[in-house]
Amino acid sequence: MDISRAYAQQLDKNDPLAEYRRRFYIAGDDDLIYMDGNSLGRLPLETLGRVNDVVQEQWGKALIRSWGRGWFDASVNVGDKIAGLVGASAGEVAVSDSTTVNLYKLAMSALALRPGRTGIVSDEFNFPSDHYVLQGINAQLGGRHTIQVLRSADGLTIPTEDVCAAIDENTALVTLSHVVFKSGYLYDAAAITAHAHRMGALVLWDLSHSAGSVPMALDAWEVDFAVGCTYKYLNGGPGAPAFLFVRKDLQSQALSPIWGWFGDAKPFAFDLEYAPAPDIRRFICGTSSILSLLALEAGVDLLAEVGMQRLRDKSIALTQYMIDLVEARLARYGFSVGTPRQPERRGSHVSIRHPDGYRINRALIDEMNVLPDFREPDNLRLGLAPIYTTFGEVWECVERLRVVMEEQRYLKYDAARATVT
Amino acid sequence: MDISRAYAQQLDKNDPLAEYRRRFYIAGDDDLIYMDGNSLGRLPLETLGRVNDVVQEQWGKALIRSWGRGWFDASVNVGDKIAGLVGASAGEVAVSDSTTVNLYKLAMSALALRPGRTGIVSDEFNFPSDHYVLQGINAQLGGRHTIQVLRSADGLTIPTEDVCAAIDENTALVTLSHVVFKSGYLYDAAAITAHAHRMGALVLWDLSHSAGSVPMALDAWEVDFAVGCTYKYLNGGPGAPAFLFVRKDLQSQALSPIWGWFGDAKPFAFDLEYAPAPDIRRFICGTSSILSLLALEAGVDLLAEVGMQRLRDKSIALTQYMIDLVEARLARYGFSVGTPRQPERRGSHVSIRHPDGYRINRALIDEMNVLPDFREPDNLRLGLAPIYTTFGEVWECVERLRVVMEEQRYLKYDAARATVT
Repeated sequence: MDISRAYAQQLDKNDPLAEYRRRFYIAGDDDLIYMDGNSLGRLPLETLGRVNDVVQEQWGKALIRSWGRGWFDASVNVGDKIAGLVGASAGEVAVSDSTTVNLYKLAMSALALRPGRTGIVSDEFNFPSDHYVLQGINAQLGGRHTIQVLRSADGLTIPTEDVCAAIDENTALVTLSHVVFKSGYLYDAAAITAHAHRMGALVLWDLSHSAGSVPMALDAWEVDFAVGCTYKYLNGGPGAPAFLFVRKDLQSQALSPIWGWFGDAKPFAFDLEYAPAPDIRRFICGTSSILSLLALEAGVDLLAEVGMQRLRDKSIALTQYMIDLVEARLARYGFSVGTPRQPERRGSHVSIRHPDGYRINRALIDEMNVLPDFREPDNLRLGLAPIYTTFGEVWECVERLRVVMEEQRYLKYDAARATVT
Repeated sequence: MDISRAYAQQLDKNDPLAEYRRRFYIAGDDDLIYMDGNSLGRLPLETLGRVNDVVQEQWGKALIRSWGRGWFDASVNVGDKIAGLVGASAGEVAVSDSTTVNLYKLAMSALALRPGRTGIVSDEFNFPSDHYVLQGINAQLGGRHTIQVLRSADGLTIPTEDVCAAIDENTALVTLSHVVFKSGYLYDAAAITAHAHRMGALVLWDLSHSAGSVPMALDAWEVDFAVGCTYKYLNGGPGAPAFLFVRKDLQSQALSPIWGWFGDAKPFAFDLEYAPAPDIRRFICGTSSILSLLALEAGVDLLAEVGMQRLRDKSIALTQYMIDLVEARLARYGFSVGTPRQPERRGSHVSIRHPDGYRINRALIDEMNVLPDFREPDNLRLGLAPIYTTFGEVWECVERLRVVMEEQRYLKYDAARATVT
């Protein structure tokens, strides 16, 4: 293991994706080590022009006419592009609403398709908002479902066989984060989906941390439902509308609980009786935020240009390099790697754990021009976005962490948590 | 009635709000007669700079740090500003999601507060998406509610006493559009709310066509719930996030059916158990589209600067002028006014009805550089946004309509409806 800065520079020189960093707005701050692309992806340069066009030309000039010139179909058109990134077909993905709202719509749809079953399988790694949605649904449906929250033995992973063992003839729905938000553990979605189907259950994957970082084959895996966030690796911008996926042959059976005009077969006929669209549009309900939706499109186009396999290759190289450096240079300060070692079982962020993680995170942000994020209780989460993160940044991040530890800079920070990180 | 163009010019000269038109992006097309601000409001110039700041500085440069610098509180902060426009208090309004999703959340909340009652009162004038939401809720709750759809005798109005007569001891919820989307009829929300309360029912007003055009006193009227669109008179931009209002003393009792992290008391604690925020935030669920939300803020600021009473005064003058001109100059071509004559019973758009309305609308758009919109079966809808619509535009709109009719220009258009207007 070569821990020199020169080696990192060599890796960047040989990186076939190196040119893509120039497609992002770096804002003159090349010193900033941005390790939070898994929370908010960077701004693609193309997006700047796109937003300006949408605001000035499409809204300001063309005004209402723009609905007939692309706005009306944007949810499905951008969805088709995302479909290409997740191994789905055109007409299986729509972009609208938030991940939370989409999860609500699809979980309710799924449970309605399994009326005789009362089991829901999830895990302690799932994103809290996903749990909240399930708890809310259960309350609303009279508490007749049982939400099984699988626990991990090692804090990092839950073996596929343990998930499968929890699925039985009473399981209506299995819903998990494909890449989990703390440890970055990547589930074997194909195997779990196949087993769920053998037991007659449906699956709903949250792809928030895998869309744009991990190649997927939703169609080949026969996934039923999925949702995902677009402001992480898809670089869609803060709060960009989320996507939802419904397998083609389920679309005519499943029905969103939220009936709205954009999900109607003829939104502009203004009939008073709802008639759901025959296709993916039935899972949309209200008007989408067009500025945010079209800003997102630029980010999606950029990923499509690179291709998911090349992104994954670099992602694995980046995360491996981070893990190796942390072990070589930071283990002595009490850090442990909180992310699976097998590349095929992790996404594109690396969690490193330390009892003083919260204070170390504060020192990195306030003094070292590093932006990671922190997740309770002790995870420093380092997101490595293959399209713009460099090996040099990984090296520099570890170096600055070393300085924080060596000089004990974190000690001056209060361990009490702020409301917003 | 002076029908000369000179008179219109005189009205503009005396208009105390005339200066505000210059605060909008007119895009060098002063010939365009934009009569659709009730569907998509014009672009405020201030919004151009605001969007650029949000994209480049807040997203591009500050990146994830912006969550702690305003993004996290934006839904409530912009909500507080809208509260000032609708007669509500700070902490009663949040901006997030679409009108449809918000209506779903609040209608479900309301029904849960009246578990023993099964009546829902609405009308044929309510926006179709609102009906769809109610129908979906009823299906989801096992069809145990009865949705009474009040019909109008004259096609324009439903008297307050008729609405009140429909409310009884079994009514859980009364939900109507405050200003209805076809005729522009403005309900007496105070009287209906008071009567609903006397009968023990809750009210949920859709303010989409009245927010920013009609002064309201939600607190004084003791309104329970309200939702509204922000891309019409609030000039928030296409699909800008909608708002919701919940009366302060109902907030601790009511609960959204969609539980999500932005509605949790401590979103960044990442607890697995949902604990609803004690305030208006419990009705938010996922991450809001920040670009769209902050773009909207510029539009709201502008309206607040003018003040609702001044806007209403001009709105009444504009709609009265339009009605007078239509009667004086277009009645001979078979047009009838489809909007109430009493100023206190109408919002800020005028519907004019004609059996060939669809084709006339097409001719106006394609040949006359007029943008109205058309609503089935025969409504040409002319939206007059007091902050930027001029009396000269009203005159010119009627003049161009006269040319279309006099020269029978609409005859060449097919009467078959396009999917998207």
